[in-house]
Amino acid sequence: MRSFQPKNPDYRSAATAVFTAQPAMRTLGISLVRLEPGEVDLAMAYGAQFTQQNGFVHAGIITAGLDNACGIAAFTLMPAGSDILTVEFKTNLLAPARGERFIFRAVVVKPGRTLTVCEARAYAGQEDAESLIATMTGTLMALPRRDQGNAVA
Amino acid sequence: MRSFQPKNPDYRSAATAVFTAQPAMRTLGISLVRLEPGEVDLAMAYGAQFTQQNGFVHAGIITAGLDNACGIAAFTLMPAGSDILTVEFKTNLLAPARGERFIFRAVVVKPGRTLTVCEARAYAGQEDAESLIATMTGTLMALPRRDQGNAVA
Amino acid sequence: MRSFQPKNPDYRSAATAVFTAQPAMRTLGISLVRLEPGEVDLAMAYGAQFTQQNGFVHAGIITAGLDNACGIAAFTLMPAGSDILTVEFKTNLLAPARGERFIFRAVVVKPGRTLTVCEARAYAGQEDAESLIATMTGTLMALPRRDQGNAVA
Amino acid sequence: MRSFQPKNPDYRSAATAVFTAQPAMRTLGISLVRLEPGEVDLAMAYGAQFTQQNGFVHAGIITAGLDNACGIAAFTLMPAGSDILTVEFKTNLLAPARGERFIFRAVVVKPGRTLTVCEARAYAGQEDAESLIATMTGTLMALPRRDQGNAVA
Repeated sequence: MRSFQPKNPDYRSAATAVFTAQPAMRTLGISLVRLEPGEVDLAMAYGAQFTQQNGFVHAGIITAGLDNACGIAAFTLMPAGSDILTVEFKTNLLAPARGERFIFRAVVVKPGRTLTVCEARAYAGQEDAESLIATMTGTLMALPRRDQGNAVA
Repeated sequence: MRSFQPKNPDYRSAATAVFTAQPAMRTLGISLVRLEPGEVDLAMAYGAQFTQQNGFVHAGIITAGLDNACGIAAFTLMPAGSDILTVEFKTNLLAPARGERFIFRAVVVKPGRTLTVCEARAYAGQEDAESLIATMTGTLMALPRRDQGNAVA
Repeated sequence: MRSFQPKNPDYRSAATAVFTAQPAMRTLGISLVRLEPGEVDLAMAYGAQFTQQNGFVHAGIITAGLDNACGIAAFTLMPAGSDILTVEFKTNLLAPARGERFIFRAVVVKPGRTLTVCEARAYAGQEDAESLIATMTGTLMALPRRDQGNAVA
Repeated sequence: MRSFQPKNPDYRSAATAVFTAQPAMRTLGISLVRLEPGEVDLAMAYGAQFTQQNGFVHAGIITAGLDNACGIAAFTLMPAGSDILTVEFKTNLLAPARGERFIFRAVVVKPGRTLTVCEARAYAGQEDAESLIATMTGTLMALPRRDQGNAVA
């Protein structure tokens, strides 16, 4: 894995602020547990209210975690004053999302001035074991933030 | 659009049962509003608790709706006693998910014994206008249901 | 299908020139058979030299046709002096590419200043029948052309 | 990277035979240069006849190489007597395909009885340097081979 040099010296607080500003992450119980330039881990506990018909976490919820991990990973490498949006992503669901906890781990594959490509993996954890349950490749776009006076985004 | 002949004469109650059996759909406030062989519309009201940093509905939530629409559309064409899982999907986010209500409309493109390919579109509605905000192409898989004695899935 | 208003009044000659400037299209025997604002049909005859192990046209060749159809469709809506590149695409292969001739039909789903999203379908033709064999969703990017003095691209 | 145990003790000759049986690979000048259980490298020299309007290798040709690398990697883990087909793939094009030679490197992410998911990367080589130009995630399907008496596929 290559290492990245962030353009924004305050990438850590900027990325944390964007993550924190998303009500959806609070509602889904997803938290930011690791943040490095171009790399992010999010964590989520199992919640019965987010399951599908067989008791596994819904693919859309897993995708929300993967997409956010990609977005925050990409955001760490964007210049100060950027906003970020997801252009597209593709998810492969490899195994049922069965577990007590879930990790969404994203890395930047190719940072760019306008577009950044990330890859992410979702792992389900049960007792001491972790297993790969889903992958994502996503394209993120940097935009100049509309309201620079706004605290977060 | 071609029309499809369901293999399961009770496709309507079977598909409704699979939809209803998903706690995630209730939590996200997504309901089934139209169901034909190979075609499904789901609807969701805006909820502030599912937004991202700019107040738009999170891409993962939109994806959950699109994925479910694909799954139910595919399920209408599967034989009785099937279970269904999502193999993979790809989402393009075309515009911010800004609106009072959202529609997720899926159609089967190619039904198959094992794999079914669907396309879905998400629309945001505000007053009288609807606008396209996202597309999905998804691959769904039919599985024999493990516990046929089980009421739903 | 919505209709589009091209920004470049010479979109027809500009798009034809970009298509013609691609040696790969000549090598694969792909030709431009229909061109409207945001819509393109390409055609290709079966060639044994482009087949896979079962005698069907290779998925990569089908993808080359789909990608090109998307690119030219997007290009018709870009301003004069643009160059175009493919950001990403996703292809679903629905049936073996068996036939005497193939059509690659692309339409713009969402044009944008920087990014344009297209959908394309590949059809195999045999005698009087045509059947859908593959779909693509692709994201294309407009770039200012580097050498404006250059005839084509 | 996990290591895989092939089900077919003759996986090496079986996979080589499927690769060799594809006229498209010969036409594109793509050769098999490394083969391990669940891992494949293909190589291709630059050819002007496969370029797009800027002199770079066409995205469809790069995709043909990536798709084939995924297919052969998946095939090494399938039981004897299988045939293989590509269900779908998604390609991100990260940089222009500019170079003297190209490598397509695929690994199996999740092998399965019916479906196998692979990831592949394309690298462009010039003098001593290699750079990442494209990624693929693909889903491959194992089928019982129709004509077992047939030498190859």
